Amino acid sequence: MIVVMEKGVSEEKLERVLDYLQGKGFSLHISRGIERTIIGVLGDKNKMEERLPLEALEGVEKVVPILTPYKLASREFKAQDTVITIGDVTIGGQELQVMAGPCAVESREQLLETAAIVKQGGAKILRGGAFKPRTSPYSFQGLEKKGLEYLAEARETTGLLIVTEVMDTRSVDLVSRYADILQIGARNMQNFPLLKEVGKTNKPVLLKRGLSATVEEWIMAAEYILAAGNNQVILCERGIRTFETYTRNTLDLSVVPVIKHLTHLPIIVDPSHGTGKWRLVGPMAKAAVVAGVDGLIIEVHPNPVEALSDGPQSLKPEKYYQLMEELRQLAPVMSRSLSGTAHFEKTGTEG
Amino acid sequence: MIVVMEKGVSEEKLERVLDYLQGKGFSLHISRGIERTIIGVLGDKNKMEERLPLEALEGVEKVVPILTPYKLASREFKAQDTVITIGDVTIGGQELQVMAGPCAVESREQLLETAAIVKQGGAKILRGGAFKPRTSPYSFQGLEKKGLEYLAEARETTGLLIVTEVMDTRSVDLVSRYADILQIGARNMQNFPLLKEVGKTNKPVLLKRGLSATVEEWIMAAEYILAAGNNQVILCERGIRTFETYTRNTLDLSVVPVIKHLTHLPIIVDPSHGTGKWRLVGPMAKAAVVAGVDGLIIEVHPNPVEALSDGPQSLKPEKYYQLMEELRQLAPVMSRSLSGTAHFEKTGTEG
Amino acid sequence: MIVVMEKGVSEEKLERVLDYLQGKGFSLHISRGIERTIIGVLGDKNKMEERLPLEALEGVEKVVPILTPYKLASREFKAQDTVITIGDVTIGGQELQVMAGPCAVESREQLLETAAIVKQGGAKILRGGAFKPRTSPYSFQGLEKKGLEYLAEARETTGLLIVTEVMDTRSVDLVSRYADILQIGARNMQNFPLLKEVGKTNKPVLLKRGLSATVEEWIMAAEYILAAGNNQVILCERGIRTFETYTRNTLDLSVVPVIKHLTHLPIIVDPSHGTGKWRLVGPMAKAAVVAGVDGLIIEVHPNPVEALSDGPQSLKPEKYYQLMEELRQLAPVMSRSLSGTAHFEKTGTEG
Amino acid sequence: MIVVMEKGVSEEKLERVLDYLQGKGFSLHISRGIERTIIGVLGDKNKMEERLPLEALEGVEKVVPILTPYKLASREFKAQDTVITIGDVTIGGQELQVMAGPCAVESREQLLETAAIVKQGGAKILRGGAFKPRTSPYSFQGLEKKGLEYLAEARETTGLLIVTEVMDTRSVDLVSRYADILQIGARNMQNFPLLKEVGKTNKPVLLKRGLSATVEEWIMAAEYILAAGNNQVILCERGIRTFETYTRNTLDLSVVPVIKHLTHLPIIVDPSHGTGKWRLVGPMAKAAVVAGVDGLIIEVHPNPVEALSDGPQSLKPEKYYQLMEELRQLAPVMSRSLSGTAHFEKTGTEG
Repeated sequence: MIVVMEKGVSEEKLERVLDYLQGKGFSLHISRGIERTIIGVLGDKNKMEERLPLEALEGVEKVVPILTPYKLASREFKAQDTVITIGDVTIGGQELQVMAGPCAVESREQLLETAAIVKQGGAKILRGGAFKPRTSPYSFQGLEKKGLEYLAEARETTGLLIVTEVMDTRSVDLVSRYADILQIGARNMQNFPLLKEVGKTNKPVLLKRGLSATVEEWIMAAEYILAAGNNQVILCERGIRTFETYTRNTLDLSVVPVIKHLTHLPIIVDPSHGTGKWRLVGPMAKAAVVAGVDGLIIEVHPNPVEALSDGPQSLKPEKYYQLMEELRQLAPVMSRSLSGTAHFEKTGTEG
Repeated sequence: MIVVMEKGVSEEKLERVLDYLQGKGFSLHISRGIERTIIGVLGDKNKMEERLPLEALEGVEKVVPILTPYKLASREFKAQDTVITIGDVTIGGQELQVMAGPCAVESREQLLETAAIVKQGGAKILRGGAFKPRTSPYSFQGLEKKGLEYLAEARETTGLLIVTEVMDTRSVDLVSRYADILQIGARNMQNFPLLKEVGKTNKPVLLKRGLSATVEEWIMAAEYILAAGNNQVILCERGIRTFETYTRNTLDLSVVPVIKHLTHLPIIVDPSHGTGKWRLVGPMAKAAVVAGVDGLIIEVHPNPVEALSDGPQSLKPEKYYQLMEELRQLAPVMSRSLSGTAHFEKTGTEG
Repeated sequence: MIVVMEKGVSEEKLERVLDYLQGKGFSLHISRGIERTIIGVLGDKNKMEERLPLEALEGVEKVVPILTPYKLASREFKAQDTVITIGDVTIGGQELQVMAGPCAVESREQLLETAAIVKQGGAKILRGGAFKPRTSPYSFQGLEKKGLEYLAEARETTGLLIVTEVMDTRSVDLVSRYADILQIGARNMQNFPLLKEVGKTNKPVLLKRGLSATVEEWIMAAEYILAAGNNQVILCERGIRTFETYTRNTLDLSVVPVIKHLTHLPIIVDPSHGTGKWRLVGPMAKAAVVAGVDGLIIEVHPNPVEALSDGPQSLKPEKYYQLMEELRQLAPVMSRSLSGTAHFEKTGTEG
Repeated sequence: MIVVMEKGVSEEKLERVLDYLQGKGFSLHISRGIERTIIGVLGDKNKMEERLPLEALEGVEKVVPILTPYKLASREFKAQDTVITIGDVTIGGQELQVMAGPCAVESREQLLETAAIVKQGGAKILRGGAFKPRTSPYSFQGLEKKGLEYLAEARETTGLLIVTEVMDTRSVDLVSRYADILQIGARNMQNFPLLKEVGKTNKPVLLKRGLSATVEEWIMAAEYILAAGNNQVILCERGIRTFETYTRNTLDLSVVPVIKHLTHLPIIVDPSHGTGKWRLVGPMAKAAVVAGVDGLIIEVHPNPVEALSDGPQSLKPEKYYQLMEELRQLAPVMSRSLSGTAHFEKTGTEG
């Protein structure tokens, strides 16, 4: 940590700051320049992680942190990539993983139909919300427990793994009984009690980036889960909020190499929420693969116009099959593979 | 709702959209212009509040909502201002209310000392967090139940009302037993299970605006609480996230007249979090009063440099007394009053 | 400047960085902590203002600037407030200045009529654009030279000073012959050739903040004008771009005390562009005064619905008179005065 | 255009709005719903492009534009892709174009050395600024005319085309004499006199997106150039400003398919300014290709640490060669090609 003193600060004020810092057990390096005196503060990283309210001391102009505030999530702590294994599925390894399915579980029929499509396209993980965070209290809030049961049934039928959102600390146990991966939504990225609670489970956690979260805040949210004892965290970029209104969000693909550089955690991208328009899902999914992601989460719906949530960004089955095929051809460029064989070859008659 | 069709859309696609809308029970007005055909969709407001996924229908260029999605919070629903009464304190009435105190409850001594200061300055409500949302899992997380007990003791000693944050659905009962006003923090503005839960209590709720929430989303969060049966909602502007780094957040005072225009709910401003610098708290507090707020929430700490949370934005006692006096003189400009008499007159020897 | 080296950096890489910095003539302080080695770089401020590309050197993690990059604009360079005097009008002194008038000069009649209204309300400066920056090439682009002539005629008739925008280096001479104050619009805040050119004139310059400019960039734009020899710069906050769509921009009033703290330059606020809605102009104008501004720039139009530019944010004459009266009553709160006497008293019959 | 009236608007106010619109020559469709009366306004697109100040009329709640405000740039106006041809180089055609070189022309030696590297890597266009927009007036402002001469010399030596920035209307003639492509920088995207001036030349214009420009504003800036008679516009995404501080800007790759959908103009991406870190240039360049760009503009410097501008984001020669080779292998995925043969094969001894 560096403490920059105000120009022409009195010796008295400087002494008070030095005394305060020494009292905390830090060792200090003082540099007296012509323009400013600056204090280098060295010592226990843990102590410095607390944002000391030094700016409240008279004579202090600003405090500049030097160390990143996260530990367990950092590459410095763990150099090799974290690979999460669920059965025979790995996330963060050589294989790209696609999680596909409807935004919300709407009915048994809709879910089973979609699951069959997802399976046929070659993805190994089914997405679908049983608890839905909706801006309006008057919008469809999800089928809740019933939705979880349909997801479990779809898993039995298809062999797909299940990823689904948990929104409330009180539901973590319930959702954990059905899901293979617990999803924390963007609006809950800094719901700290919820992060601690999923950190106590043994389920992998898909942690979406908050709407206006910085990379550091996002990693710190992962740190909450890691610090609670669960080291299976998958980060998910889903677009940030900007002034642009044409797209629903602004998908920030540069975080893919950034996260890979700063942390050892796997990262996936959600081009459906990230753009809000089905037309943009394909190009952004492919761009994400080349930027280095470990996977994608994509909305697929057999009939988007009847979807109770986020229809405009859902792919119809044929578009989904086509995208999977394109991704399968693209993956080797990144020395990756994507499971499944071409749908078109399989069915013979299509395309 | 207006549906804008793509240029040169085929009659077939247009028919399909019209059929779909008629099937939902709407009445339609079709305008065929040279450039575009547009469909005016009239009917039951409730049905339209659901964001229909019409953009997933072929031939649709965009869908433009016409009605605001909130009802209970709107001026249209209730023309007169909501005034919340707790004992002899009103929020949203003629009297400005100041909520003051430390960011976090740190110890019994710190809290009781601060409460005495808050009381002496003339504020009627004591703020202080027992549960603290912190970016880092390694930062002080609050004294929890112990903190609530100290707050209750401070209320007994001083007669001040208590506002404190609740972060977890599981703690709503607990916090409600101690607090006079439940605070929902910015990071939880769209924690929908929590909004529903505080909506079931009979306590007034202070709802902070999310870091990057639009005005409409903020009002919709209030709508969750109102729809659950609790009509005592106080909105609180606390700064939004922008690219500016000099201030911690960008305090958006224009929302004060905007909220007054769109809703009947009281609104207060938090210049401490809104700026992150104690030097800016005074000017912004006064500007907020003139912009029309119903109250302010301000951080006061007897020793900001020893504060475990947000010291740089806390006022020392003398600065707080001085600000209260300035606000007391300013309030009549807005035909408002602020309780308390000048600290300087009271003590005689100071200033 | 502080150079933070990567964790576990080799001695060789460290040496290379030290050699490079010594070669530039800096004196260095090295602090070897457990986590990181950091280098304090001291020396000639001018040299350090150049953003040295040290991050391109291997082993460097980040570079943290310590000094602000502006000089002439800073409070450190000049402690007392800059007061700009034009005839008997001062900007930055005890008197609040209101600049009022139409967004664009549309015709001789419109301008002379508006000027009379502006004068009657008590403002001393007339605003009005002869060159208009418009998002669309098909929108009204201003009356250009003709517009300047009408402004000059309005000055002769009313005695008001003239502030008008200059958009092109080639027009600086022309506009300077007519205007008392040259306005640089938000979109030109970083039009560096234009800043240099107005810096060579002897006219005061009203420098609007860019749509997404940081405070530091804005002050650096002022520094361009100051460095060119013109020390009469007035800063003008006019709202920044955020995700909020209800208001046209988000007016950032916290910059008023920030600018007063960091610089010696006068600052005014534009609540018309800052909000985009006439309904919000009054509350924000008053809030700005209490936040400490030196003046306001406000759109007034005799018939907003016929305005060729920005009608929705223009005040009708009666609203303008009323606001001026309110500001006149508010000014003493800030130990300020506002010229003119109450319109209502003057005319006797109104109100 | 749709005009939404306030709830319960009086017939008198409604009549006044209808009269006003009929007086402008529009034909009107009125829909009286339970909640609101809305007016569909049809007629001449040109008239409607002017943002009519209807919101200034009493009783009007809001005005919703239906048509996009651009014409010449739109896909509706011209369905097939614009391909710009300069000698044997095409931009917007089957071949990907890479523009590479230093941020600033610093000296004859630096430029010629870099040009040779750029050529060897296989790019066909040399970038380099002779006029540099710098935040600080004390930073290196470019070699100006001398820089242009060096660029011309580099063209003669290597056969590369030249793209360089023009910042001032007074320099358009000068720069046009040397450059093959005129660059308009992000800060000048809405410098309308400059847009008009380059619109009068017969040179292709590279138009960078403004730091916080919406897609629509960006296209409107292109429309200025097109409307002035120059139909050779290349759009360039270079990152937008967000709250994220880890990267210099947030590169928005979703605009690539968006621009391709809305306009017929070629689009390229600048991953160097878009990220500000050389480490991110490669992944983002490749992602951009897969998202569908027509080209890239990349900073290359033989010695980034000695660069006078933007060293941290410049690639060293070997990194540049490697990226070009990767792009060459990636291009066929998009049915594109990239000129040049692998540097590694050429030189034999490297890699």
